[in-house]
Amino acid sequence: MRNQMKTLYVIKIGGNVIDDESNIASFLNIFKEIEIPKLLVHGGGKLATNLAEQLQIPQQIIEGRRVTDEETLKVVTMVYAGYINKQLVALLQSADCPAIGLSGVDANLVKAHRRQKGDTDFGFVGDIDEVNISFLQTCIQSNLIPVIAPITHDKKGQLLNTNADTIAKYIAVAMTEYYQVKLIYCFEKEGVLQNFEMESSCIDLLDFNEFQRMKQDRSLHSGMIPKLDMAFKALENGVDSVSIGKWEDLTDLVKGKKGTRLKMNHKLVNV
Amino acid sequence: MRNQMKTLYVIKIGGNVIDDESNIASFLNIFKEIEIPKLLVHGGGKLATNLAEQLQIPQQIIEGRRVTDEETLKVVTMVYAGYINKQLVALLQSADCPAIGLSGVDANLVKAHRRQKGDTDFGFVGDIDEVNISFLQTCIQSNLIPVIAPITHDKKGQLLNTNADTIAKYIAVAMTEYYQVKLIYCFEKEGVLQNFEMESSCIDLLDFNEFQRMKQDRSLHSGMIPKLDMAFKALENGVDSVSIGKWEDLTDLVKGKKGTRLKMNHKLVNV
Repeated sequence: MRNQMKTLYVIKIGGNVIDDESNIASFLNIFKEIEIPKLLVHGGGKLATNLAEQLQIPQQIIEGRRVTDEETLKVVTMVYAGYINKQLVALLQSADCPAIGLSGVDANLVKAHRRQKGDTDFGFVGDIDEVNISFLQTCIQSNLIPVIAPITHDKKGQLLNTNADTIAKYIAVAMTEYYQVKLIYCFEKEGVLQNFEMESSCIDLLDFNEFQRMKQDRSLHSGMIPKLDMAFKALENGVDSVSIGKWEDLTDLVKGKKGTRLKMNHKLVNV
Repeated sequence: MRNQMKTLYVIKIGGNVIDDESNIASFLNIFKEIEIPKLLVHGGGKLATNLAEQLQIPQQIIEGRRVTDEETLKVVTMVYAGYINKQLVALLQSADCPAIGLSGVDANLVKAHRRQKGDTDFGFVGDIDEVNISFLQTCIQSNLIPVIAPITHDKKGQLLNTNADTIAKYIAVAMTEYYQVKLIYCFEKEGVLQNFEMESSCIDLLDFNEFQRMKQDRSLHSGMIPKLDMAFKALENGVDSVSIGKWEDLTDLVKGKKGTRLKMNHKLVNV
């Protein structure tokens, strides 16, 4: 049954695509060639940091997460759901790729709650409770490419700044109801590196046991660990494949020819 | 046939609702009671002006239109399609009114072209070419309330700042394909005033001939003329009714009990 499902590509891009207009254009030139259905989840941290600086709103990043006070929430909502999202959609339309910009707020796509305060108060940062994909599926069935900004809400009227990697993972997992889902994280490296100081040490295929071993060895860049933890969870929850690599290699990432592909060990016989 | 069509309310709100958070909450409390299908078109000029000031981007308003250079376009896109739009949608969700935020860019809803330079260069200001309502209708059929920000695109990748009154009119006219459309403009006055210095001189029912006479008499506030010209065009093009009044009176505006209702003379027999 699963084998007869259509493939959906869930592609996540980050700041290194968005911060530079010529990168956006080059990325979209590659992205538009990938067959539909597909959807794009984007971040855009550096542009938000720039605007916050211009507005003299002090920014604090702890463990890779932006502490989001009220003013910063306004900034990220404006930058992610406003400027970046609408610009990406307009550029896709110009390339004859019908698209729709969404945030987690729209059609109640991503409901979250404000992160519980531990030692650190991250402010208006959301941890995801659920994704509601029925309307997302309506968009895709209307041949639209959803372009999703990482702003969510708590259903009590509060907007929340939410990690785009995590949104991509939740949506990818939920969409396995309708599709064979391939999740692709684009970032600034070739893939997962055997030695994080050597770009040429990219691992083609990383299984869960090897990942656990590398975590214990501390041979992984610390920033990679939460990303990979999440990526393996996606696999565990039904996503067909997860690949990580450079946006410039997206065509080959989709084909599994570049970057790092992850696999669960217990699924080896099914691959 | 027309009489058997469902009613769609197209409601436009401007800065006087959006600039003040307590006004937004009060407005949405009234708005949520109006039966679906309904859709909301919003502006938000003053917040955009504030942000532009904070960023030291000089603003110029000519004939009520914001001259939109590249930096200002970024500001209005962030404020209208980002902050205001997502906040309105989040608040509607919290009131159990499923909603979706859109701009003219999304699903190619409003295609425009950059205004031809006459004596004045308005910059990235859009004049509407066409609206594509099929996906809007899909949203409404999914029981979502579309909340529309006044940013459009030229299908060549350029975002354009576009008058929200005009967007409301174009969408209202296009939606007559599916609905009996009632268009309601909320603004800061009781309605069209016989004497624009006397709030108590609100005209209940304004017909086209009387409007022409008032234009000639110069008894209308100059800012009202383009709004009314457009409103009468909406009637001429099949919109069932157009009302203008205060947002606080929205419930009564919908019932035709407050504000000014416009009518075409040649349609008198049909009213």
